[in-house]
Parts: sequence; structure tokens; C-alpha cells
Amino acid sequence: MKYNSINEANEAVIDKIIGSSPFLVDVVPAKEKINAFGEGKVILHAGPPIKWEDMTGPMQGSCIGAALYEGWAETDVQAEKMLAAGEVKFVPCHHVNAVGPMGGITSANMPVLVVENRSEGNEAYCIMNEGIGKVLRFGANSQEVIDRLKWMQNVLGPTLSKALKLTEDGMNLNVMIAKAITMGDEFHQRNIAASLIFLKEISPYVVQVDMDENDRKDVIQFLADTDQFFLNIMMATGKAVMDGARKIEEGTVVTAMCRNGKDFGIRISGMGDQWFTAPVNTPQGLFFTGYSQDDANPDIGDSAITETIGVGGMAMIAAPGVTRFVGAGGFQDALKTSNEMTEICIGNNPNFTIPTWDFQGACLGIDARKVVETGIEPVINTGIAHKKAGVGQVGAGTVRAPKECFEKALEAYAEKLGLI
Amino acid sequence: MKYNSINEANEAVIDKIIGSSPFLVDVVPAKEKINAFGEGKVILHAGPPIKWEDMTGPMQGSCIGAALYEGWAETDVQAEKMLAAGEVKFVPCHHVNAVGPMGGITSANMPVLVVENRSEGNEAYCIMNEGIGKVLRFGANSQEVIDRLKWMQNVLGPTLSKALKLTEDGMNLNVMIAKAITMGDEFHQRNIAASLIFLKEISPYVVQVDMDENDRKDVIQFLADTDQFFLNIMMATGKAVMDGARKIEEGTVVTAMCRNGKDFGIRISGMGDQWFTAPVNTPQGLFFTGYSQDDANPDIGDSAITETIGVGGMAMIAAPGVTRFVGAGGFQDALKTSNEMTEICIGNNPNFTIPTWDFQGACLGIDARKVVETGIEPVINTGIAHKKAGVGQVGAGTVRAPKECFEKALEAYAEKLGLI
Repeated sequence: MKYNSINEANEAVIDKIIGSSPFLVDVVPAKEKINAFGEGKVILHAGPPIKWEDMTGPMQGSCIGAALYEGWAETDVQAEKMLAAGEVKFVPCHHVNAVGPMGGITSANMPVLVVENRSEGNEAYCIMNEGIGKVLRFGANSQEVIDRLKWMQNVLGPTLSKALKLTEDGMNLNVMIAKAITMGDEFHQRNIAASLIFLKEISPYVVQVDMDENDRKDVIQFLADTDQFFLNIMMATGKAVMDGARKIEEGTVVTAMCRNGKDFGIRISGMGDQWFTAPVNTPQGLFFTGYSQDDANPDIGDSAITETIGVGGMAMIAAPGVTRFVGAGGFQDALKTSNEMTEICIGNNPNFTIPTWDFQGACLGIDARKVVETGIEPVINTGIAHKKAGVGQVGAGTVRAPKECFEKALEAYAEKLGLI
Repeated sequence: MKYNSINEANEAVIDKIIGSSPFLVDVVPAKEKINAFGEGKVILHAGPPIKWEDMTGPMQGSCIGAALYEGWAETDVQAEKMLAAGEVKFVPCHHVNAVGPMGGITSANMPVLVVENRSEGNEAYCIMNEGIGKVLRFGANSQEVIDRLKWMQNVLGPTLSKALKLTEDGMNLNVMIAKAITMGDEFHQRNIAASLIFLKEISPYVVQVDMDENDRKDVIQFLADTDQFFLNIMMATGKAVMDGARKIEEGTVVTAMCRNGKDFGIRISGMGDQWFTAPVNTPQGLFFTGYSQDDANPDIGDSAITETIGVGGMAMIAAPGVTRFVGAGGFQDALKTSNEMTEICIGNNPNFTIPTWDFQGACLGIDARKVVETGIEPVINTGIAHKKAGVGQVGAGTVRAPKECFEKALEAYAEKLGLI
């Protein structure tokens, strides 16, 4: 390789993370950015590749919803038949510069957030957050869900697109993230500050868009009510930054972590697009009234891209407000978690200093070697889906990325380098 | 007295603080709520009573601005002559259910925030935050300052009034404060989260107000840009809550702390409206480029009502993001400060739990006896004004409430109780 050591290669990767310059520039129908949708009936999903019959309930429910939304079927029974018959092609979001929360199900007409990483000239995409309650990402597919998705397609998406164009330069996401991490967000289970900052930045432009007054009111109200709106922006940011960084095709920096409900998959910088998978764990945490651990779906979603860039569970200490929500104890437990995570990371990210960590920067660059050496698996803060489609979120907790993925990745890289 | 002990009286006072129910209900011209403005030319000021000749630069500059704003004079020279000649009556904000930041200068036509404490049926008022730069509260009085005040009178105030009426019930401030304290605000030098929460709550209503579209854009932009907008809401909240609590006219709970640039004044529950004063200290802290401690005006403003109800400097640990701004060190220093403050307080406020303090409630009820016994003076986070009118803010820091005020108050109360 062109670096003198794996350490040197890893430094090059993290330099690209530190130097990244992500901007939110637009919201457009997915098909405008992702060519894969030109190949007939296509659905994107979270995690590494998976077949219909291996998908868990929430992801299957989401697929049915997407088929109804796209008008491929009239009823959920028709939709399910079509999906089971193999009439729809499944593609991982990660294969087309995208990421998706929970099921990650994304179809051609769904609007996606467009994040441009100006330091590397690459883009990444993520659908917008639908709010809470019955939502597609947890496998719900009732008329209420489809109606909201249509509203997002016809009103929310175009409004945000017009508003973002009025900003001329887009929104500087590093600045927004730096502000919000000081306000107790860890960007996976807690995005309340960042969502408010987004509202603050966008609302003066939304007010200027030439549009129906009732629609404008609905847009402002939706953004004001949706505490996790920024999660999906953060996910697209994480994808854009890590895809920029993994242009360095050497080293052992983890460049993606994701789950499809069956497998946990990772990528490392030295192995390009290849996935290294192991069976996913099931999150442990706190459950909403009436639900218990028995109801929990195995870990799912591309949202672990947040941990990949050092926030989420890795930045537990930034968000003491979230520790009780995910059952991670009090302040000292949060501190312990983030301190433990430094043992598997290469450094700290000076862009995102955490006041509650005495102004240390967020974790930077998970080194697969350190995971294997120490046996410390990256921690992920996550929402917990009910294992049946459409019941929705039943809790929140933490889960670990299985060490086996990291072992497989290292082995493959050692082989590539001719070390074994 | 009707309580068996001072402790029992103090418990009654803090019960009223805990049970308070402050709502932001309206924004109206000050003269609509404050009868004192009916008595000719009247200006309200911060702190205990003070004469024109004893006012420091920023407060005098603010008075000149108010005279120009009200149309009492055409030039600052005319205005100053009129003020020095005793043609304007000065009244402390605190005497008319109001509070004011820095100079605290409030005149008849300035719009004030109206906070209703529903548990006690009392109201409190505070002018709105003007933003940063050249502003009246720091003694600036140029045309730019007067123009902004006129805009606040003619556009911002009426818009917020109409928007608040659309909410029907007003805004529940305890809920907003509880959210923001989890997001790293201490509500004196840092109100960024609370200001965003206010924007989130009000913007869906501002969008519904029948008004000029450019004005609407200006209002949303102003609220989005003004990180300290919530400070003045918090001040009116503190005043409403403490005025409700001091209906218990016994005990040694500090019910007001304020400064006029010359004197620091406190009230305690057992001594009603009486002020106990001592010369103010000058804040120590960090200065903006080009300024130093020599430029600092002595401590000024009613904003120490925030510390009186247990936030501000008392809640330093809630706001690790602000510690560096006020020169209070890192996380451990913030922790030390709040821990020290518990030694002079009666309890913790369960309404406002602080995640960074392992979910302890904010300080509750400064006991003047404990201040005297321990020698620990309450800490105040404050902006630092230049001593010359109109230069504006030159830094931020901390300052202590002088112990002498507390000694005088205890002595007077002991005398009232016939103990000495």
C-alpha cells in the first residue's frame, strides 16, 4: 500500500473525517439522485444485503407500505404477494450513497435530504423523519402512514427544497452539530436541540416561500413537533462524511455500521465496499408501558452511521438527558461509556467538543484492530421496534456491534495485505 | 409569627416556589400594566432605588435613550439636561411587579412580556431582549437603537401578543424551563436552548397571524437570531414566582437580588418590600478583544432574579457550555460551584432536574442565615457592561452578592421578631 503503516493509513482516513465539510443543500425525490430506481420496481433497505424471506416484521411491513405508496398494489395482501414473488428488487441504501432509519425502506418518489460533503465533492441521501406514532420506518403501512408520506412528497419536501435554495449556500452542518452537541444531543436517540436549530435556520426561509398559507403552517408545525427530525440529517451527514473518508482505501477505520434485523454489517476503510457481517444482537433497554424485552425486534437500521462517526452511543456523555431514556443509568454511567469507547477509537474530533466531557472532542475513527484487541464492542443507542410490523417503537436502549464483524474484516484485510 | 419556626416559614416559602405555575400570556405596552406610568414622565430602572447622579454610565445612557424614544427630547443633550434637572421620576422595576436587564430602563410605550403565576394569581413584567450589539440595556441610545425599540413596539410586540392569544392558554414556562435546563441552559448567560424552544412554540402561531409578510419574516428572523431572547422571559418568570412565594411574609428566604450599578439589594421573605443593600462588586471574567477589567462597570441589572430562583450561576453545572464564556473553568469547576451553592440553599427544585448534576434539582431557596453562617456568597453569572454608556457588553463573568446585605436583612428580621 502507499502508506508506511496501517496507523499512517488510518491517520489519512481520520484527517478526511476532520476536514469534512457537509452541507444540507436540497430535498428531492429519491429517483432524481439514485439511478437504481430506473431499473423497474426497486426498494432500498437498511443494513447489508437481505432477501425478502429473511426480513423481520418491521422491514416487511415497511416494504408493503412502500408498494402501496408507489401505487404498485391496491391492498397490503396484493403488495405482500408481489414482494414475496420477487417482483421487487431490493438494494441496500448503502450501495447507492444512501442511509435509512430502522427498516430504511426508501422508494423512488420519497423525498430525500441531500447532504453534500464539499471537502470531497460527494453526496449522501436519507429520507426525512416522519415523526412518532404509526410510521413506515417501524413497519406501519396504514392509510394514515401513506397519507403522511404523500404530504411529505407533495408539501414538506418541495417547501424545504425551495427554502434551502433561498439560503444560497445550504446549511453548514458542522456548525449545527457543534452547537447541538453542547446542548445535550448525541444525535441518535436525542436530536431535540439539533432539530430546534434546524427549525431556527430554516423558518426564516420557509416564511419567504411563495406557497399556500395552510401548508406553510403545517410545515412549521411539523418541524416544531418533530424532535427527531435532525436524526435523518445526521445520518445523511454521517454517510457523506464516511464515504468521503473511505476514498482512502487502506487502513482499519470502520467506515459503516448497519443492521438489517438479521445481520449486523460493517465496512472498513481498507476493504472498500465489502461487508463483514454477523448475526445482530437485540437491544436491551427500557420499554414503554405494556411492552417488554420479549417484544423487541433484533437490531435494525442504518442509523448506526451516527456511532460510526463518533456520536450516538459513543457520545453518551454529551447527552446525560438521554441516559435514562435508553436505560444507561446516570451521569457517571454515561461518562464511563464514552471513556470506554475512547479505547477503540483513534482520536477525538476537534469539530465537536463536548462540554460535559470537559470539552474533549467526540470519538473519532473506530479502529477495528482495537475492537478485536480489547474485546470492547462499539455501543449503539437505538430505538427498539416491536418485532411485529406496524406496532412501532416499543422502547429505547443500547446494543453492541458484534465483535465477529471486526474479526472477519481484519482477517480479510490481513489477507489483502499479504500478511496471512 | 404564625409559624413554629423560621425553618417552617421557609418551607412554606419554598412550597410556593415549587408549586408555582408561570405562563407567558401576553406582550403589551408597559403603561397598560403599570400604573406608575400615569404619573407624568416616569422611567423604571434596575436594582434598588437610585438617584440620577448616582447612576453609572450605562444606566444614564439608557435613560437618555428612553427619553428620546418617548419623544420627551429631540437630542441626547436635551434629554440629559431634563434628566439631570429632575424632570423624570425614577422608580425601581421591582416596585411595580417588573424586572429589567442591565440598566433595566423601561418606559411607558416599551412592550413588556406578561408572565402570570397561576398558582398565586399574580403577574410580572419584563421588557423584551433587543439582541446584541448596540442596545439600550447597555446604555446605547443612537438612532439605530431607538429604531429597533420602535420596531419592537410596532411590530414584534403586537405580533407576539396576537400569537400568544392564539395559543389560548399561554405558554407553560415550567415545561419550557425543564426542557432547556436539560439542554445546557442556566438561563442567565446561556438561554440558547430556551430561546429555540420559544421559537418552536411560537412560530406555528406567528405563521397564523394576519400581518404583513415582510414583517412576519422579520419577526421570525429576529427570534431565530436572538439567542438570549428567553433571558427576559426567565426574568419575568423569576419575578412572578418569587413575588408569589413572598406572600408568606415570614422566614429568611431571599426573594430578590438586584443591582443598580452602585448598590446590590436583596429582599428576604420575612421583611416584605424592604431592601437591604451594600456596595456592588465588579464582575470578574473574560473580556472581548480590546477590553479589560479596567473597562468593567460595577454589577448592574435585575437579572440576578435568575439566581434568586436557583438558576444562573447557582445552576452552573447545568450549563458546562457557558463555563468557559464566564471564565469559570471546566466541568469540574462548574460542579464545584453548584455544589458550593447547595450549602446556602434550603433544597432542590424537583421541577428543574439537571442531568449533568446526576438529575439533582436546581438550587431552591437561598437562606440568608446560611449565607451569613457559611460566609458563602451567592454566585451570579453576568454580562459585563463597559462603564461608559453605549459601548455595550465587553465581557462576561461571575460576581458575588455581598454578604453585608444578608447580615443587614437578618438583623432587621431578628429585630422584627423581637429577638434582639
